[in-house]
Amino acid sequence: MLTGQQYKDSLKDGRKVYFQGELIEDLETVPALAAPLNEVASGYDKYFNADPDAINPVTMAPMSAADLRDRIPVITEMDLLTNTTYQSLMTLSVAAARLEAHVPEVVPRIRAYVEQARKDDIRITECITDAKGNRSLAPSKQEDPDSYVRVVERRPDGVVIRGAKLHISAAAFGHDLMVMPTKAMKPGEEDYSIAACIPANSPGVHMTNTTYHPTGRDPRDFPVSSHRSIPDSMVIFDDVFVPAERIFLDGQTAHAAVFAHSLGLWERLGGVSFMVEQADELVGLASLIAEANGTAKISHVREKIDEMMIHATLLRAGLEAALAHANSTPEGYFYPDDMYTNVTKYQGASQFNTMVKHLHDIAGGAVVTAPSMLDFDNPELRPYLEKYMSTGSTVSGEYRTKLFHAIRDTTADSFGGWHFVTNLQSGGGLFAQRLVTRKNYDLERARALALKAAGLSGA
Amino acid sequence: MLTGQQYKDSLKDGRKVYFQGELIEDLETVPALAAPLNEVASGYDKYFNADPDAINPVTMAPMSAADLRDRIPVITEMDLLTNTTYQSLMTLSVAAARLEAHVPEVVPRIRAYVEQARKDDIRITECITDAKGNRSLAPSKQEDPDSYVRVVERRPDGVVIRGAKLHISAAAFGHDLMVMPTKAMKPGEEDYSIAACIPANSPGVHMTNTTYHPTGRDPRDFPVSSHRSIPDSMVIFDDVFVPAERIFLDGQTAHAAVFAHSLGLWERLGGVSFMVEQADELVGLASLIAEANGTAKISHVREKIDEMMIHATLLRAGLEAALAHANSTPEGYFYPDDMYTNVTKYQGASQFNTMVKHLHDIAGGAVVTAPSMLDFDNPELRPYLEKYMSTGSTVSGEYRTKLFHAIRDTTADSFGGWHFVTNLQSGGGLFAQRLVTRKNYDLERARALALKAAGLSGA
Amino acid sequence: MLTGQQYKDSLKDGRKVYFQGELIEDLETVPALAAPLNEVASGYDKYFNADPDAINPVTMAPMSAADLRDRIPVITEMDLLTNTTYQSLMTLSVAAARLEAHVPEVVPRIRAYVEQARKDDIRITECITDAKGNRSLAPSKQEDPDSYVRVVERRPDGVVIRGAKLHISAAAFGHDLMVMPTKAMKPGEEDYSIAACIPANSPGVHMTNTTYHPTGRDPRDFPVSSHRSIPDSMVIFDDVFVPAERIFLDGQTAHAAVFAHSLGLWERLGGVSFMVEQADELVGLASLIAEANGTAKISHVREKIDEMMIHATLLRAGLEAALAHANSTPEGYFYPDDMYTNVTKYQGASQFNTMVKHLHDIAGGAVVTAPSMLDFDNPELRPYLEKYMSTGSTVSGEYRTKLFHAIRDTTADSFGGWHFVTNLQSGGGLFAQRLVTRKNYDLERARALALKAAGLSGA
Amino acid sequence: MLTGQQYKDSLKDGRKVYFQGELIEDLETVPALAAPLNEVASGYDKYFNADPDAINPVTMAPMSAADLRDRIPVITEMDLLTNTTYQSLMTLSVAAARLEAHVPEVVPRIRAYVEQARKDDIRITECITDAKGNRSLAPSKQEDPDSYVRVVERRPDGVVIRGAKLHISAAAFGHDLMVMPTKAMKPGEEDYSIAACIPANSPGVHMTNTTYHPTGRDPRDFPVSSHRSIPDSMVIFDDVFVPAERIFLDGQTAHAAVFAHSLGLWERLGGVSFMVEQADELVGLASLIAEANGTAKISHVREKIDEMMIHATLLRAGLEAALAHANSTPEGYFYPDDMYTNVTKYQGASQFNTMVKHLHDIAGGAVVTAPSMLDFDNPELRPYLEKYMSTGSTVSGEYRTKLFHAIRDTTADSFGGWHFVTNLQSGGGLFAQRLVTRKNYDLERARALALKAAGLSGA
Repeated sequence: MLTGQQYKDSLKDGRKVYFQGELIEDLETVPALAAPLNEVASGYDKYFNADPDAINPVTMAPMSAADLRDRIPVITEMDLLTNTTYQSLMTLSVAAARLEAHVPEVVPRIRAYVEQARKDDIRITECITDAKGNRSLAPSKQEDPDSYVRVVERRPDGVVIRGAKLHISAAAFGHDLMVMPTKAMKPGEEDYSIAACIPANSPGVHMTNTTYHPTGRDPRDFPVSSHRSIPDSMVIFDDVFVPAERIFLDGQTAHAAVFAHSLGLWERLGGVSFMVEQADELVGLASLIAEANGTAKISHVREKIDEMMIHATLLRAGLEAALAHANSTPEGYFYPDDMYTNVTKYQGASQFNTMVKHLHDIAGGAVVTAPSMLDFDNPELRPYLEKYMSTGSTVSGEYRTKLFHAIRDTTADSFGGWHFVTNLQSGGGLFAQRLVTRKNYDLERARALALKAAGLSGA
Repeated sequence: MLTGQQYKDSLKDGRKVYFQGELIEDLETVPALAAPLNEVASGYDKYFNADPDAINPVTMAPMSAADLRDRIPVITEMDLLTNTTYQSLMTLSVAAARLEAHVPEVVPRIRAYVEQARKDDIRITECITDAKGNRSLAPSKQEDPDSYVRVVERRPDGVVIRGAKLHISAAAFGHDLMVMPTKAMKPGEEDYSIAACIPANSPGVHMTNTTYHPTGRDPRDFPVSSHRSIPDSMVIFDDVFVPAERIFLDGQTAHAAVFAHSLGLWERLGGVSFMVEQADELVGLASLIAEANGTAKISHVREKIDEMMIHATLLRAGLEAALAHANSTPEGYFYPDDMYTNVTKYQGASQFNTMVKHLHDIAGGAVVTAPSMLDFDNPELRPYLEKYMSTGSTVSGEYRTKLFHAIRDTTADSFGGWHFVTNLQSGGGLFAQRLVTRKNYDLERARALALKAAGLSGA
Repeated sequence: MLTGQQYKDSLKDGRKVYFQGELIEDLETVPALAAPLNEVASGYDKYFNADPDAINPVTMAPMSAADLRDRIPVITEMDLLTNTTYQSLMTLSVAAARLEAHVPEVVPRIRAYVEQARKDDIRITECITDAKGNRSLAPSKQEDPDSYVRVVERRPDGVVIRGAKLHISAAAFGHDLMVMPTKAMKPGEEDYSIAACIPANSPGVHMTNTTYHPTGRDPRDFPVSSHRSIPDSMVIFDDVFVPAERIFLDGQTAHAAVFAHSLGLWERLGGVSFMVEQADELVGLASLIAEANGTAKISHVREKIDEMMIHATLLRAGLEAALAHANSTPEGYFYPDDMYTNVTKYQGASQFNTMVKHLHDIAGGAVVTAPSMLDFDNPELRPYLEKYMSTGSTVSGEYRTKLFHAIRDTTADSFGGWHFVTNLQSGGGLFAQRLVTRKNYDLERARALALKAAGLSGA
Repeated sequence: MLTGQQYKDSLKDGRKVYFQGELIEDLETVPALAAPLNEVASGYDKYFNADPDAINPVTMAPMSAADLRDRIPVITEMDLLTNTTYQSLMTLSVAAARLEAHVPEVVPRIRAYVEQARKDDIRITECITDAKGNRSLAPSKQEDPDSYVRVVERRPDGVVIRGAKLHISAAAFGHDLMVMPTKAMKPGEEDYSIAACIPANSPGVHMTNTTYHPTGRDPRDFPVSSHRSIPDSMVIFDDVFVPAERIFLDGQTAHAAVFAHSLGLWERLGGVSFMVEQADELVGLASLIAEANGTAKISHVREKIDEMMIHATLLRAGLEAALAHANSTPEGYFYPDDMYTNVTKYQGASQFNTMVKHLHDIAGGAVVTAPSMLDFDNPELRPYLEKYMSTGSTVSGEYRTKLFHAIRDTTADSFGGWHFVTNLQSGGGLFAQRLVTRKNYDLERARALALKAAGLSGA
């Protein structure tokens, strides 16, 4: 296993990482990149074990429903990159099992890769969403054939790929990029049916970065995003060679969706758990700021907090139902129920903005106008700010100001905006969750109930 | 145990039942009362056991989480009066245990009553909601002191009560009226702290009745309400004597809420289970009518059905979470989790009208204008109706018309209106569910998450 | 002009009206039909003028914006059948003008018909919605070619039509049925491009009826629907001959939509005005029942009433905007703005159920369980009901009970259900209102604003 | 009148402006302050007239309903500070008229001030919201008596005030601070009943600043906020002397609300007009990005845009109704109707987050992950970005990227967050708008409608 420092050194591997238009040689020189780099490094140190045979236990599969439940606090605490690594390795393990009967030749490769990755303690990111071009057209019908990542050349020792993957969290900080198709492909789309794990420093790989990290601002004014920001990359594959042993699917259109489906099993526990925590955090912020404002007993404020608690509890019920109905793969790996996790994500995503509206309504305009902690540092200003931001002897000006900053940072600034968008879009978006519901809901039972009500049961 | 006929005969006991302003001697002579009478009688026949020591098994307590879950199909199938009887007996059993340390003298009475009730196979209804007068005033502050049921005289052998209870389902069809206070009382409200089981034919008891039963209409046009209607009574207690052995609380203000709280444990499983079934039934009706109209593949129709499925699944998740976290009383009786059942009821009640809106939007105007089945009986009309209500060779006019009637009956007519109101109001209404949420939600944990986000964890 | 009695006599013309499967010779013998018959007759008496040249002024066109506004109280007071007559005559007048350049031969016929209809003081109903069969197929592609009304034979002196029209309000009570296509037709659908005014007693016309009239119930328990119910008919045309002078379009597919579009101009003022009144009425009911319950000062009750007032005012704003931007036809007839009336109807329809939910939440369970006024008639019960339905000396039991009946009748019973469905479906339904919005909204201006925001204005 | 440069020079007057904890001598040295400074200066140049008697015409009152309507494009184009100046001068003019009968001694002072201000071409900001302390307590009951701005000393030539005002837009950029109480005061709160216009550079005035200006980021990535940001200040009055001729109210508790009410007349036209424009801009962004993504014809995308158009049109209807019912002050100044502007603001504020959710749902994750325009500047990256952000030959990568930046900037980043909060909070927040509705809605008419429906009209 690697220490945090060894990890940081390992990224000085010639990778092409860009930020604000510049090629970045050393990630630590750019504050917005240094912050996540150090967070990932801390994760390495946290799990480090000097035993040469040690592997990180959090990358192993949950083998029972109880084990699955026990993962929740681990996953929600874990840095995002360790989480994507765990998800990726689990995805590959399940995909290998599913491909055994259909594409047996890739199975040993996948298994060897997984074993080696655990041994080398590397970090892996997930590259799914293609550039897509015109969304109403299929991959092979696009004006630009590279709108979806594809194989442009096949050589005896591997393939050359071209295209771009969007919205790739933490891409610049991982060792390998797990590239996989978004969905099942049709005959004629063989070149788009490519899955592989590609070193981030492969020639031809370029990674731009966007972030909500509050560079140049006082971290105390951004209490969450200043230390928990993860850049999103566009990962460009400009004719990148992939050696054969890293290719896990190539041309088997019917099986192109195996990887995304397998990933679905593993990503959702984290996603739903995070949503439940986020909903509880919003309740907490609303409760604290109402108390600090002296409005906690006003009827409409209490009712808004009630609604937020009901929302959070409903999401938790969804998570609990998903755990109570956990399923296992043929290999005995446990994952939460599809249907319940999906409706929970849908509900969480579609109601998030309303919950934030309640919080803003309760908190008041100081969410965006509370003075900076730098203003508090000014000895002339500080007494004024303490005096006028305080609402009584039990609520200091600084305490209340920090609550406003936390609310602004998480719901009314760059990081908040990122949540608005990604809550809606993650895991394929609301539409994808509808499709899963259509597929899983027991419609026949519902129709039988309706026929019975209509006196048509014998029909 | 009693047969259905014995049950019917037992109600000819001099009770004062009114319907549309008239005193009804024989319930069977009024169609709107005969229908529920016969439904309850069928329930007797269904569970009848000639063994002289037999008691109805469905009135016994669930003794494990699995047993609790197994009750759901039993309860949703059961007639409402058997269900209230089960709830009442369980309520009394739990209340007895809770009162043991505080009001020990009533415990043997309660236990004796429960045993005898099971032995006699009687039916019991729940009288909770008082007339209440001005709702912003406490019982003892009302202009009319009888606005809440109270003791007006105490005698050596019992008490005399006066007042009225509203919205009492099936009161006219049960043997005993279980009277209990709505909530905890304050010192000075001793006379309002009365709980007792009172024979429905006691002198001074009067019971009016309202119903959504479609009297005088063709039952085929009202496929659900024509055979599943239960009248609601106002039960008036005009100086009714209650013998001592039937008094379960009298004047212990601090314990006045014990009965309502105990009832809460038992009524909610049925309530939530029904809501989930109802939501699924709405999905089924939407799916069938969309198919019958030829609109099942239209995008906005599909999306509305998606939303209905997501809603139904979210309610089911709430029920599943409540079962997964079932609790037991000290006596070992299992009941579903408070918090999860309450948020589920809240969600079900507050979203019901939106789900019905989707159904109406999908179904179209024929929900209220589809011809009567009596029109189909007319030989001249029938060919026209078959021709013009059909939408193709696989969807007959009669079939589609029956779907419209089922939708109208359950959502756009008297029975539907009853659902709109009672879904909102049952179990104390949305406000009561908010209060339960406030009481049970882990607010401290939420505030700790928020303090952590604000960098104030050490505070 | 006709008196009410003359009108009633005029309907004894051999028409085939059915109710609950029976052919009805005399409408007055069926209470559910007698009620609307008498309401329409009152309308005749109200406007009666013995002058032999008199015509009903309310059937004339509004000739200025001020005149248009003055019509609102007239229209909302008017019986529905007089309103549809006014709309029909205005529709024909505008259609005649629009057809002048394209189908000149029908114009004199239409104008002669309108003049005669005003002179004869007849009542006209609007037959638009076809049976439609499978809604995903065009008229000419249906399994049954009669799914849309069509010409089955052309003779020198007229045509023979076949088909059925659904949801026809008051059809059984008017003299003529104004038949028109729903929309523009395509080449090949000539037979479906038929518009005509057909006597209701023409051989081959059959009219079924459905109603929310509370037959057999005490009218005091149904204070609105007992005297303001209008049946909806399915009107069947079983090879009905239409004489040439009553045919206003026959085969001109491109112009088939002229009548429905013209009708749109005239029906919407009434529709929107009614919605605004209905919203205000709901506010009033909420305010009165909150006061009667003693809950008018409870914060969440006040807020719900606030929301209802805001809703009602927003609808009124829509109506005001539509009047402020009234347009006129080339003939100088004034009608309200399309866009504003449509968004107002959309908002009114889509929020109606939420407003009703607020009302039910405020009012409480007695909406469906309040005793009948017949119970109040019983001298033994009356004192109890007065006592327990009262909430203090200023709120009598009868007064409060009547409020509950008004709420139940208009929102939680047959008539309420009819509103739920027809508010959503009238004028083509929510989807039709979306289409009008798409067509009328100034999207180019909005896109220009967006381009400017994006710094792309020069693009 | 002043030129832009003269204006800028005039602010070098010793004022105490702070930003990020530092006292700023020259506003132009701080980019986040220089941007608004230059915007205001441009406003000066735009209206500059060298005539020594010239005054800025946009600060004069609208004298007819037509004039009021014509102001809308002027106001929405105008820089914010010129707008607050106009509002402030109108507020003072109307307040003077209202105070004439009650506090005549202040009237000449107010009028002289207004005349001089127009002549000197100064800019005025509005200081309303106090620090407030515990919001459940009145000004005089606070732990800290300075929680609301108050007079701490009265001298022959003026008064000394202490306190702080929050959320003061553009305070650092105006010449005078118009201080006024939030609301009517009670006897005993004389010291809090103070209104005055105070030079921003008065000794004892300190102004902190917060902003959503994207300092340090490429302005092309923030196409709106980079050039249209206005800081909000906390304005601290640390024993500030106010000369007598600038005091417009001092101690007349009953009239303390006059200024805030008068301001209400003038601020709302701008507020509502802006909301309508903003709603249209969101529609435009949704339409453009759907087109650019190739999803404009997908049914659910179209329906979301429909809903956004309906929302925008409903807001516009509210504005139109407010203009159609414009009122005038006794002086003949025209202002829009209270009721309609308030419900429009309420609707706009309460639905904003849902409209943004639709936009985010339509646009996709690239709202937050689209590459920076600085990335486009990199010659190696640019071809990749052009290639992969393009969706076909008619949609260039740069064009589409700029749309994403506009969406992110206005709805999913600092500026968007500022909108979320201030849309809800401006003009007193949703609660204040409810109160105005309660006050203005014709509840008696609504109750009369309800009584009529209940058959209680004679009651």
